[in-house]
Amino acid sequence: MAPAGIGDSVEGVHAVRAALAAGRVERLLVDRRRRDDVETMIGTSGVPFEVVDDVRTHARTDAPQGFVARCRPIATISLEEAVAMATPASLMMLDHVEDPHNLGAVARSARAAGVPAVIVGGRRSAPVGAVAFKAAAGALEHVRVCVVNSIADTVTRLKKVGVWTIGLTAEASDSLFGLSLLTEPVAIVAGAEGKGLSRLVEDRLDILVAIPMSSGVESLNVSVAAALAMFEIGRARGTL
Amino acid sequence: MAPAGIGDSVEGVHAVRAALAAGRVERLLVDRRRRDDVETMIGTSGVPFEVVDDVRTHARTDAPQGFVARCRPIATISLEEAVAMATPASLMMLDHVEDPHNLGAVARSARAAGVPAVIVGGRRSAPVGAVAFKAAAGALEHVRVCVVNSIADTVTRLKKVGVWTIGLTAEASDSLFGLSLLTEPVAIVAGAEGKGLSRLVEDRLDILVAIPMSSGVESLNVSVAAALAMFEIGRARGTL
Repeated sequence: MAPAGIGDSVEGVHAVRAALAAGRVERLLVDRRRRDDVETMIGTSGVPFEVVDDVRTHARTDAPQGFVARCRPIATISLEEAVAMATPASLMMLDHVEDPHNLGAVARSARAAGVPAVIVGGRRSAPVGAVAFKAAAGALEHVRVCVVNSIADTVTRLKKVGVWTIGLTAEASDSLFGLSLLTEPVAIVAGAEGKGLSRLVEDRLDILVAIPMSSGVESLNVSVAAALAMFEIGRARGTL
Repeated sequence: MAPAGIGDSVEGVHAVRAALAAGRVERLLVDRRRRDDVETMIGTSGVPFEVVDDVRTHARTDAPQGFVARCRPIATISLEEAVAMATPASLMMLDHVEDPHNLGAVARSARAAGVPAVIVGGRRSAPVGAVAFKAAAGALEHVRVCVVNSIADTVTRLKKVGVWTIGLTAEASDSLFGLSLLTEPVAIVAGAEGKGLSRLVEDRLDILVAIPMSSGVESLNVSVAAALAMFEIGRARGTL
């Protein structure tokens, strides 16, 4: 079962500010050392707050920066909804990303590049929790998340509805840069750190492309690779 | 005083493997749970190793992944050496990056994009230590580091030797993408997380450029911004 929602606990200054702006904070916990900053943070939102001795004991991240927000969760979206969020479709898909920091970083870059939805595998993947929300620095209030059980099956479903599925892998002979296909409906697929795309996923993809790199380099950080790909969509379409 | 060298302790599978390949590991500490992997890791290098109960007690990062390498440090380089490493010069400069993960991530992208040297401020900046080396996943064995006391003074010095200094800031009207100046000798300057470029640095730069982004977005993660800029150098020069 995919989770009903994400982001019920949000931590860190940027992420909490964004959750407040989105109107979904129900209660704010504030470290007593940040007591003086709470009115500025809350503004005119009228959100109730509670001052606590050490907010870190209520936090799921290492550094909540004085603020933990208990929130109404954000609903995840279906694959059909994700496809419909942009015309032509513009999707970033993560094949088992294990580090929630990377997931948050990808969401942050997606927001900046104008990619409206991110698809993540629901099993063996980084949970979309407080660490991801903090790394996203507010972007997960805007970029929508679609959680799927199988990335491989999702590739098949996307192809059936006319979305080109494009995998990032260092071994490909085609280049991401200047790829004209990016003006069509597309989903870019990036693999797990270290392992890359799983074989099953790779076999089903329409096309594989590489990010051109200096010789001798094996791979990029997945969040950097995803950012380069998502900005390439915006450049190809002239939307940035 | 700038430090004499960096990378005397290296942790994590990728970073340790790269330090071994660079021939600078003097002694390897191995967690007893990774005992079976140590011969594969060491290979034919003949590096002495010691099995310890919990390698984390010897580590400076949160997750050394079973391996801590004590190494001969890598010498940092002078600004003149950094400028001379590529023709035309190709430099990434970080104006007070506080998170060593970001510093490591920038080095990893620099290696992939073919930027041979990174310049970092020596005061109030992320130290180039075990956390940075782990995040760089081996790239800091190849990308050279120049530590300077003042980024602002360094901008002035670079201009005197004919290197164009280009700052990244969301407020600029010119775009990074397609910037023809990148075929000339250049140093790209990225600011601190949250605060951006310091005023003193910004005032001295030759040109400011923005990474085009969706409306309403304030900023990118500094390591993503740096990666986009460094790959843009490679694209402009046709070296990738």
